[in-house]
Order: sequence, then structure tokens, then C-alpha cells
Amino acid sequence: VDLNSLEELLSTDEKSLVSLMHCNNEIATRIPLKEIGELCAQNDAIFHSDTVQSMCHYAFDLTETHVHFITGSAHKFHGPKGIGFLYVNKDIRINALITGGGQERQLRGGTENVYAIVGLGKAVEIAYKDMDAHRAHIWGVKNHMINRLETEIPGVEFNGDSKSPDSLYTVLNITLPECPNSSMMLFLLDLEGIACSGGSACSSGATQGSHVLAGINAIKDKRTSLRFSFSRYTTKEEVDFCMEKLKALCQVSTTANQIA
Amino acid sequence: VDLNSLEELLSTDEKSLVSLMHCNNEIATRIPLKEIGELCAQNDAIFHSDTVQSMCHYAFDLTETHVHFITGSAHKFHGPKGIGFLYVNKDIRINALITGGGQERQLRGGTENVYAIVGLGKAVEIAYKDMDAHRAHIWGVKNHMINRLETEIPGVEFNGDSKSPDSLYTVLNITLPECPNSSMMLFLLDLEGIACSGGSACSSGATQGSHVLAGINAIKDKRTSLRFSFSRYTTKEEVDFCMEKLKALCQVSTTANQIA
Repeated sequence: VDLNSLEELLSTDEKSLVSLMHCNNEIATRIPLKEIGELCAQNDAIFHSDTVQSMCHYAFDLTETHVHFITGSAHKFHGPKGIGFLYVNKDIRINALITGGGQERQLRGGTENVYAIVGLGKAVEIAYKDMDAHRAHIWGVKNHMINRLETEIPGVEFNGDSKSPDSLYTVLNITLPECPNSSMMLFLLDLEGIACSGGSACSSGATQGSHVLAGINAIKDKRTSLRFSFSRYTTKEEVDFCMEKLKALCQVSTTANQIA
Repeated sequence: VDLNSLEELLSTDEKSLVSLMHCNNEIATRIPLKEIGELCAQNDAIFHSDTVQSMCHYAFDLTETHVHFITGSAHKFHGPKGIGFLYVNKDIRINALITGGGQERQLRGGTENVYAIVGLGKAVEIAYKDMDAHRAHIWGVKNHMINRLETEIPGVEFNGDSKSPDSLYTVLNITLPECPNSSMMLFLLDLEGIACSGGSACSSGATQGSHVLAGINAIKDKRTSLRFSFSRYTTKEEVDFCMEKLKALCQVSTTANQIA
């Protein structure tokens, strides 16, 4: 996000709603939430941020950050699937999308998903307990993969900011060099027990490519782009297993690599 | 529902959407789904029925019943809270209410609530296995309460169709005779460990009265209306416990009752 361009857009007299993803789910780009929040506050804009990827991976201090809406989804931090939340700050009133019963202060009709709500709360509690240690562990695993990719797969490219220390540490997006297996790469990795994805999980099974990679001009013809995700349960040994399979599928021979 | 009136409404040239609750959640009134479905089919109307109260309490044969939409909610048949379904027949296409990801064939964006979906499926399976036996048991319990109320609480009234053998067998709605405890009745029953309600659960905590009872002119000044629900786990002994507490709170003395 270009902050100068945002400032220019906000400098009109019109009341604006700014909606920006905190961390991109495909390429791990992380925006400076606090700076953007201040820019929005100075220009009297309403600021919504999709924080689903980063919730419980970074601490949010909402007394310090000017943001009107943030969101969370439990399965992104080891809670149950099917439950999320929307935080709306006290300066804002919104209308219901789902009407009917008066549940959730008239904002979302329907019998509440009680077990999942409890599960989400517990998952937040557990995630916050050791967040710094988890972050250090996951950075260790991600950097291990970055190092091995750079050393052992010549021509690999890192998409977006995903290699940067400022990126969301749970996601790494790469483009592999062209090889005979390119078009079948996701399928072949799956057969080896390696779960990664070509785009976002929201469009699993879709044949069209990633709109995010297209948006940053990172679609590379016949080459394959892969998104790897890391959690506090991922180990360096798993990365090593994945690297051996990746190299075999890319047909990078160990000997050739040693000579290089 | 007055079928003649419905037929008259449908006899215009306009394309119509008919939306009628199969069984009312407060007063147990059950509409003749098949007849209404035929009326709608004859008049080329689209027919939606909220079958949340009756799903898994009656068998639905959708090859026999002309209905375009029916719905279910798992907690109404001992499944998990927070999950439901919408059936849309093959003649109809609808737009998404919640957009975003391509989940559920583009009809509802968002990561699916997998555990609850599985739970709903299992609950349907269990409910269908012994539906007739469960229905017979619940009718036995409900009729036991009807009989005791009629015999032991003079002046009790049954709202809507809830006493009728055609009613939804899981619900009974009554109005108690006026007594000094009238305004506190729900609260006092709750203290005794008896969970019943004044209106629908969707408006728990709301101070306004039931819109359903108001709609059938069944609001009776200072008298209290109560909705009791029965399941396959409810017993006649529980009804007996409830009756003793109800009689005490209504101050119907056993002696007076015997003399009467």
C-alpha cells in the first residue's frame, strides 16, 4: 500500500471507508496498520481491516491503533472451524446483514454457535499466552525453508513480501523454475503428503489462477506458484522432507547442486 | 392459514412467492404443507416453508410435496447449536447473501463449520431412525400435561392449535388464570428449575410480549401465557413435578380442587 497515494485519496472532502487487509493470505504482505489508522483518523475516514490472517499472531492494542473494524476467524489460530468475530469500535453503528431474531444485540439473527464461540475464546487465550515464543519458532522454520530454497533450487522466486522479515511469518509464496512437472506440481506434492496451495483456500478447486499473484504481475506463464503455511506445530524436519520431495519433482539433482 | 384466501391471492397474474411456516414455534399450529404446495404449483407460485420446528419430527417426502425451499436447524433435533441447512429444489436458482469465497457452490462465502455439519448429519440420521416411536412418546407426555392442566387448573386456556392432535407435538402454549404471581410466573418457575418461555427464544430477554399471541388476539391482560416444549427425553414424571409447582404458584389448593 502506497501511503502517499492513500493520503491523496483521503484528502477529498468526501467521507471515506478504507478497507485494507492487514496481512495478505497469499503473499504475506503486511501493511503498517498503525500508520494507516492515523492517516484515516486525520482525514476522518472509517477504517476497516481484515485481520483474519494476523489475529493471534500479532498483539493488537486497540487503544493505540485507530481502527474501526477488525475481524478474526478461529481456525486461523488453532480454534474450531466455522466461527469468527467482528470487532466494531464504539464510534460506529452498523446495520444487521442477517435479520430475524434479536440475537447478538440485533446484529445477527440466529441461534448462536455456542460451542464454537467458547472454543474461539479458549483458542485466543492459548494463542496469546506464548505468542512471542510461537512467533520465534515459526520464523525459525520459515527461514529454514527460505535458506534451503535459495541454496538448493536455483531460479526459485519469492512472491510479494513473503521473504521479508516484515512479512506475515506464517506464509511463504514461491514460484518454482519451469520443469516438466510444472503443471502437475500441486497434485504430485499432495500424493507425497505435502499440503500446500496454488491460491487461497477460499477458491479451492477453482481452475483459475490466483487473483493476488495476477494483481502483482507475478503470474509466470508455465511456472508453478506455491503457497506454504507454517504454524507452531510445523517442524524443520517437515521442511526438510518437503525440500527433498520438491527437489526431486523439480529434478534438481543433489550432485548437480553440490557441484554448483 | 385460510386456503381459500390463499387461492384468491394466488389467482392474480403476478408471479408470487409464498412463505409460510410449517409449524409455528409458539403455538404449534401446523399447516397442510402438501395442499398448499399443490395450490402454489397450480398457480405457478414459488413456495418457501420454514420447517425448522418440524424437521426430523415429521418425515418430508420432497418427491410428493411441491415446495421449493425448506430449512432445518440442528439444535431443534438434538444436533449441535449454530448449524442449519437450506434445501433449494432444482427448479430454482438463488443469489448469495454472504459473498466472498467460493464455498458452498458460491452460495455462502466463509470457511465451513465442518464439525457442526457432521453433527447435523448424524443428528438427522438418529432422529429418522425412530421417529414414530419418539412421536408417540412425546404425544404421551404432552397429552399427560394437557389432561392434568384441564383437570387441575380450572380456567386454563390452550392457545392456538396447541392442544389439537394436528398440532406440532413438541409445543404446548397455555394461558394461566389470573393470580397474584402472574407477573412473576416465568421467574418463579425458573427458580423451581422449570424452563419454559413467554414467547420465542429468538427474543429472550425482550420485554415486549409475543407477536404471535398478539396476532391471534390471545393476549389476556394480566394473565400469563407460557410455552412448554417436549422432547423424546421429557418424562411424565417431569410433567408431574412441573404441575405441582404450577398449581402451587397459581395457588390452586389440592383440597379445593378435589371438592370442585
